[in-house]
Amino acid sequence: MPGHFHAVIPAGGSGTRLWPLSRASRPKFLLPLPGPRTMLQETVSRLLPLCGVDCLSVITGAAHAVEVARQLPELDADRIIVEPMARGSGPAIGLGAAIALQRDPDAIVGSFAADHVVRDSARFESAVRAAIETARAGYLVTIGIEPSYAETGYGYIRTGDQLAEHAGISVSHVEQFKEKPDRETAESYLASGRYLWNSSMFVWRADALLEEMRVLLPELAATLETIAAAWSTPERDDTFQRLWPGIEDVTIDHGILERSDRVAVVPGSFDWTDLGDWHGFGKVLCDDPRENLTLNADVLTHHASGNVVFGNGRTVAIVGLDDVVVVDTADALLVCNRHQAQDVKRLVDDLKRRGSTDLI
Amino acid sequence: MPGHFHAVIPAGGSGTRLWPLSRASRPKFLLPLPGPRTMLQETVSRLLPLCGVDCLSVITGAAHAVEVARQLPELDADRIIVEPMARGSGPAIGLGAAIALQRDPDAIVGSFAADHVVRDSARFESAVRAAIETARAGYLVTIGIEPSYAETGYGYIRTGDQLAEHAGISVSHVEQFKEKPDRETAESYLASGRYLWNSSMFVWRADALLEEMRVLLPELAATLETIAAAWSTPERDDTFQRLWPGIEDVTIDHGILERSDRVAVVPGSFDWTDLGDWHGFGKVLCDDPRENLTLNADVLTHHASGNVVFGNGRTVAIVGLDDVVVVDTADALLVCNRHQAQDVKRLVDDLKRRGSTDLI
Repeated sequence: MPGHFHAVIPAGGSGTRLWPLSRASRPKFLLPLPGPRTMLQETVSRLLPLCGVDCLSVITGAAHAVEVARQLPELDADRIIVEPMARGSGPAIGLGAAIALQRDPDAIVGSFAADHVVRDSARFESAVRAAIETARAGYLVTIGIEPSYAETGYGYIRTGDQLAEHAGISVSHVEQFKEKPDRETAESYLASGRYLWNSSMFVWRADALLEEMRVLLPELAATLETIAAAWSTPERDDTFQRLWPGIEDVTIDHGILERSDRVAVVPGSFDWTDLGDWHGFGKVLCDDPRENLTLNADVLTHHASGNVVFGNGRTVAIVGLDDVVVVDTADALLVCNRHQAQDVKRLVDDLKRRGSTDLI
Repeated sequence: MPGHFHAVIPAGGSGTRLWPLSRASRPKFLLPLPGPRTMLQETVSRLLPLCGVDCLSVITGAAHAVEVARQLPELDADRIIVEPMARGSGPAIGLGAAIALQRDPDAIVGSFAADHVVRDSARFESAVRAAIETARAGYLVTIGIEPSYAETGYGYIRTGDQLAEHAGISVSHVEQFKEKPDRETAESYLASGRYLWNSSMFVWRADALLEEMRVLLPELAATLETIAAAWSTPERDDTFQRLWPGIEDVTIDHGILERSDRVAVVPGSFDWTDLGDWHGFGKVLCDDPRENLTLNADVLTHHASGNVVFGNGRTVAIVGLDDVVVVDTADALLVCNRHQAQDVKRLVDDLKRRGSTDLI
């Protein structure tokens, strides 16, 4: 286990594009996708070999605290930080760093989303170890995934000059963060070999992050340090409850990474998916786009390929259709073109608008 | 009410192409398609103004006798004829005629399937009245539907010389019965103006049918007359049970109509559908092929048109798909391309092969 390494898992977001399986009360990180364990449980078990159970924290919202506690019985209560209300990834990840710094002045903190699918944990660990070594030198490190195809649903990182090499992994300066590209741009990124997918995994010395935050987001830094100073005292809850609501809602990307000049990137060669929608879910289950993929259903097909069925135990028959997603739940059924899986979010907006709160 | 007119409704067939709604124990004529009443109930109520409740009989199988009795409380028990086993339309319709002949030597019998959808009952009645007048002259009369488009799922009738005219309806000789055509042939039939859809509705004098049957199917005619002779005696059940199993399984089309030279056709200008599959069901609900059609479901759509949902009370969301049929039942879900709706029959074959008797 690398010395001084602490892992923080921000477990938030609702995953509306995975409706009707994901609901406000049951966001995607609490779901068994692709199963059998939940995404949160998988994330924890991927990190434990790197940090141990005493140096792993989950930061989640009040609405999901109970379920997180039940899914992770191995974590001490103190390792589950419950935000009074969501304030974006900047405050959550910053608080994780500030608390770690109270316990360990040499703390290196890694932040890993609870709703990503990672295959090949050996390569994942190698990348994190290289990121930890890079972070020791004071860099704010992000892990970028080597793209395997021209995905348009992810942000990209343009790599700059090489900074270092750790165990055969070449670390670079980040030249620029790029928003989700169109198809043509994504193709050119892939062809150039200079772009990585932005996985939003970060590793840094806790003191380096807070130092940068003091410059770029001084109010946030001061508030986080006040909360962290009270963390091991009887004042913790009062301080947290009192200061958190006034905190600026900012992402770590916009607030820090895109504005800092000490950002480095470690390339990850492991199989990674931001399980954003049902099409991505299908890709996680199987690379072959012609296979009919099934979880939890008895599926019969006739002249059908590339379909994805997430069932509810019933028989599902598909006739004469390709690339369709069927998600069968107790109270709602989704039938969706895989290539328009992003639009499922719109349905949830529609349901909100018409007040169908039982379905969202 | 036209004098001496008796209606017979053969209520058989399973409707496997309407799976998973239709099942062996719940064939399509017992289902509320398009609803709210069942197809059998609609058929009866369409005929009652023409024959009255005392001259209408239903012929069904033992498996469906109880449900038929419950759906038609207005019929005397004697008006529901329960076949010991199915023997095709020839024996069923022939028996209806033979029994009517026992009651009324001038009986004119009309046979109307229990699983057709007819809109515009005034025009339906006009066609039947013209068929009755034609039948009085000794013709075996079939009602052919004026085609509104080049349907490939129906058989056709090629009309010959005009025979008569009744209340403005021109009656012709039948030149030939044609099997379901391919697309090109169907287009040429439509363009010629000489073809009608074969609706399998028949009207004839009972004695004329039996006379023709004595020539073309002499054994069947003799057996039916023996059964009919016993019908109003205590020997009815014994005779029926004893003779029926040995009867030839033959359709009225192949056995009589395609071989007789006294067949006439009355054109029907009413809206008629042989509700054979889910695509046809959609067409019955709405002529506009771009509409999303819904029964018994709360349906949300996004970039979706021409879809047909037969629900089970749940919310069904469709995203990015056109021309899909969704049939939601308690234990099975069908998602099918409307244009391959005929293939649903294959699924039922698959279910039979693998022994999933609970689903068929």
